[in-house]
Amino acid sequence: MNKRKIEVCLTPVLLPLYDIENSIVVVIDIFRATSSICYGIANGAEAIIPVAKVEDCLNYQQTDCLLAAERDGKVVEGFDFGNSPFAYTEDKVKGKTIVLTTTNGTYAISESRKTAYQVIVGSFLNLDAICNYLQKQDKDVLLLCAGWKNKFNLEDTLFAGAVVTQMGLDNFEYDDSAYAAEDLYLQAKDDLSGYTSKASHGKRMQKLNLEKDIAFCLNHNLTNVIPVLVGDKLVKM
Amino acid sequence: MNKRKIEVCLTPVLLPLYDIENSIVVVIDIFRATSSICYGIANGAEAIIPVAKVEDCLNYQQTDCLLAAERDGKVVEGFDFGNSPFAYTEDKVKGKTIVLTTTNGTYAISESRKTAYQVIVGSFLNLDAICNYLQKQDKDVLLLCAGWKNKFNLEDTLFAGAVVTQMGLDNFEYDDSAYAAEDLYLQAKDDLSGYTSKASHGKRMQKLNLEKDIAFCLNHNLTNVIPVLVGDKLVKM
Repeated sequence: MNKRKIEVCLTPVLLPLYDIENSIVVVIDIFRATSSICYGIANGAEAIIPVAKVEDCLNYQQTDCLLAAERDGKVVEGFDFGNSPFAYTEDKVKGKTIVLTTTNGTYAISESRKTAYQVIVGSFLNLDAICNYLQKQDKDVLLLCAGWKNKFNLEDTLFAGAVVTQMGLDNFEYDDSAYAAEDLYLQAKDDLSGYTSKASHGKRMQKLNLEKDIAFCLNHNLTNVIPVLVGDKLVKM
Repeated sequence: MNKRKIEVCLTPVLLPLYDIENSIVVVIDIFRATSSICYGIANGAEAIIPVAKVEDCLNYQQTDCLLAAERDGKVVEGFDFGNSPFAYTEDKVKGKTIVLTTTNGTYAISESRKTAYQVIVGSFLNLDAICNYLQKQDKDVLLLCAGWKNKFNLEDTLFAGAVVTQMGLDNFEYDDSAYAAEDLYLQAKDDLSGYTSKASHGKRMQKLNLEKDIAFCLNHNLTNVIPVLVGDKLVKM
């Protein structure tokens, strides 16, 4: 029997190199878009609509949607909030639809939805749920790291490695980046916080006093909820 | 004092994201283009002209250049040879100019020459020479992995990690991919051959019975020669 493929796309720029028609794509933007999306859906948000541009977000101004926009780690002026997970608590998001644009994560989602079999959203907050789900499917898997402005980043790759490690070589065929992600994760897993503190985006967030966000996004398995893209909306699977 | 930057560009697709006007670019295609280029220049080849396409190579048919062309691991039909290092021995290349096109490496060279301050060629065969040279310059460093058909590969990243490790955090500021490359190298360095055997291109070459090429390309420091791009030619620095 042919093994299923598990591949790691290290940045969205590389996505066109992958054939994902028969793949489940897991979008990964650990600091902080996909962590916040998982937390928001877990906390009862009805839907999160990822849009690529700030202007796309503004199109929803006359609706009752919450508008969330982040660029370069900061809330865009004039918006309700950005992508800090602490803005996605139950009291704020339950029953609401959120329109969200971020520097990296929402771009990765909009790119992958064009051709993937299915697009789901992963973070350490729902790591085991993602892995359990993927194990039970019969599709190939592409772990899509959002990166930072299309460059490689450490934290997204580490999460990809955490998933690869749980999938395992018995059932999956790895590509080179899956091997690399797994080995980096195994090296970092006992001190993810220390390891990611050297990451460029970790440093950037420290400068913006976002240490609490970083620590929160490294929590494992706070929820079993998996956000899945249906049409243009992320909803609870 | 600002530290110099050392960055790792994991595939040529990502090159446009880097500002390399003030950088020395080290092009890396371990299996086998840059290993063979280093070996050929060390063995007295007068020059190696990297060209992107097989057709570009054919333009030199009426000259006394040797024509070398590789695609998908094999010598292209009708050519003198491809990019096996064993075709670049002294008896074959001394005093000769070689026009070379390969699947990945020569594309990386032609892309980087457009804007880089300087382009040099690295491989395990001249690792220490490359590092000694880079230490003495005052430029930033970009380690450009040729990858496989624009995707990430393990062996090029490991070599990048070997260079990063020698440069060190005391003198250089790393980007995220430099951290990752260093950590992968430190994990793999005691058994590079075992580690790279899981790499997709390693497997591809095993199928083509190129194990001897792989083993040769993992030799360290056979030469102190550094090929440097001058105009459109790689020559001994």
